[in-house]
Amino acid sequence: MKQVVLASYAKGHPKASDFRIEDVPVPVVGEGELLLKTIYIAVDPLIRFSLDETVLSGTARMELGAPLIGPTVSQVVASNHAGYAAGDFVEGRTGWAEYTVVAPDKSDYRGPPRKLDPALAPVSTALGALGGPGQTAYEGVVNVGRLKAGETIVISAAAGAVGSMAGQIAKELGARAVGIAGGAAKCQGLLDLGFDAVADYKAPDFADQLKAALPEGAEVYFENVGGEVTLQVLPLLKRGARMPMCGFIAYYGVGMEGPGPDHLPGFYRQIMAKGLEIKGFAGIFAGQKGLDDIAGWMKEGKITFAESFVDGIEAAPEAFASVFSGHSHLGKLLVRVAAEG
Amino acid sequence: MKQVVLASYAKGHPKASDFRIEDVPVPVVGEGELLLKTIYIAVDPLIRFSLDETVLSGTARMELGAPLIGPTVSQVVASNHAGYAAGDFVEGRTGWAEYTVVAPDKSDYRGPPRKLDPALAPVSTALGALGGPGQTAYEGVVNVGRLKAGETIVISAAAGAVGSMAGQIAKELGARAVGIAGGAAKCQGLLDLGFDAVADYKAPDFADQLKAALPEGAEVYFENVGGEVTLQVLPLLKRGARMPMCGFIAYYGVGMEGPGPDHLPGFYRQIMAKGLEIKGFAGIFAGQKGLDDIAGWMKEGKITFAESFVDGIEAAPEAFASVFSGHSHLGKLLVRVAAEG
Repeated sequence: MKQVVLASYAKGHPKASDFRIEDVPVPVVGEGELLLKTIYIAVDPLIRFSLDETVLSGTARMELGAPLIGPTVSQVVASNHAGYAAGDFVEGRTGWAEYTVVAPDKSDYRGPPRKLDPALAPVSTALGALGGPGQTAYEGVVNVGRLKAGETIVISAAAGAVGSMAGQIAKELGARAVGIAGGAAKCQGLLDLGFDAVADYKAPDFADQLKAALPEGAEVYFENVGGEVTLQVLPLLKRGARMPMCGFIAYYGVGMEGPGPDHLPGFYRQIMAKGLEIKGFAGIFAGQKGLDDIAGWMKEGKITFAESFVDGIEAAPEAFASVFSGHSHLGKLLVRVAAEG
Repeated sequence: MKQVVLASYAKGHPKASDFRIEDVPVPVVGEGELLLKTIYIAVDPLIRFSLDETVLSGTARMELGAPLIGPTVSQVVASNHAGYAAGDFVEGRTGWAEYTVVAPDKSDYRGPPRKLDPALAPVSTALGALGGPGQTAYEGVVNVGRLKAGETIVISAAAGAVGSMAGQIAKELGARAVGIAGGAAKCQGLLDLGFDAVADYKAPDFADQLKAALPEGAEVYFENVGGEVTLQVLPLLKRGARMPMCGFIAYYGVGMEGPGPDHLPGFYRQIMAKGLEIKGFAGIFAGQKGLDDIAGWMKEGKITFAESFVDGIEAAPEAFASVFSGHSHLGKLLVRVAAEG
């Protein structure tokens, strides 16, 4: 079988050449373990945090030569565990390999693989609308952002998997949703999804577009990016605005200290001047209410979650790198490693 | 009479020469107005925000040649308003002048001058323990920081008016208080006030002192400074730590973009890695419960609030500048413009 291993620690944005495809034997399943066939790999940008030679405390570091680990959907090929049967679909955090062995009773902090019901929703949604992105969007808008009907939310990286869900959830709550995305096509896509207004951060008149989209400011800034986009958004927020933060892709390729000038003083000024409330969150699950709400909205056709696929595990390194260079895929990008069933 | 006017917009830390003493006639009191004799002027560092030629939206800009405005305690000399009588002491936001005329019914967002009861506490405490500093400390520790018994709070600028109150309030709540201050004398002063541990940011082994003072991290970081101190504190905070922020004196002398390198990426990483909750607050009043709690603790001798005085309005520019250069006065620095009564 094939697997994707880390060839060198990433410097700045990850490159496909930071990874290597290897041919290795299919692992042997032991007592209490499952042999899983990987169906989908999510090219999750948060994996970037584990690719530095020196990682922050609390972050797992990937080892050179070891397979990458991230969110996947797999199918049980052989089970030595009473809780799982061959043919079951599961979502979990497993290796970037065609086959993996896991021990459900010895799993990491994310818990044992979660069994999926293919009759309820396509299993790929466990990595999207009903997975990390959907639950992150729900958590950020509903629980951290506490968005209320009649308020305005501005969302960076709005065309991404999390951002596009966040905007649609905001609309379901009766709020005004303003999206920031790169390029006219993505911006039009957001309007098609029901966003009230958009601003194209790649356009020369981005600042003016943003001001026009937020004539009265915003109560919530759903922060996904950091960098120049955020520095433009902050002065437009209302006093007491909430800023749920689930990522900052502009800085994933930057060390603890970025290139000058120092923007932290300006950031501090805005926190004070606006009385901002900022809350970082990640790896949080929105709970059963969140899953039920999202599933209900999808069933009623109120929420659309776009997925794009690339085929074959060999495509994973390039797909992962493209997340950081602004790929043109719509919605969540998944690597289809094998066919279902 | 004498007044202090802005001679030139401040660049970086304010200097005494940015201000000018002028001799002007005592203003004439009109219909519905009060003539106030200024007793104490608080050299409030937040005034710095109004001294830039271009200020942030929402911040009042001082005009060149106009008297500075800030927190004062005054005594009513003549009243054309039914709510006030000659001899009353009031706390308000008035000009840096020996006499001022105010119209209580047309006051700014801070409301009309607040009448003080000199029998309850010395009127100077309206600018300290029972004024902005005390209420800011209470708000940050109790309401924004939500500090609980058994938790640890780390406080920057702990020897200042706000910080020293914050640590003592934390102790009253049953929490562990760790203070950061500059110099051995100030650090010893904090231990004398009841702080459990200290770290001297001017010492070459500050980072080690801080780690030793926070062996298990902290649930709350009371942020007063920004800059290098904060960059050392953040990695030591516990996951989900709260960070009430009421100032950032390290950046008051810095423009929207400070000198490189950019520390915002590292700050973002900490927000995400720790799931930090940051909340800026200023000009917030802790409410009657806060005032009652503080007054009660002071009456029982549980809380000490140090005040230092310089005499005469001519001393105000130098006193204000000294706040930014790390003056050696203990506690809150007040300008005594006139004797009481």
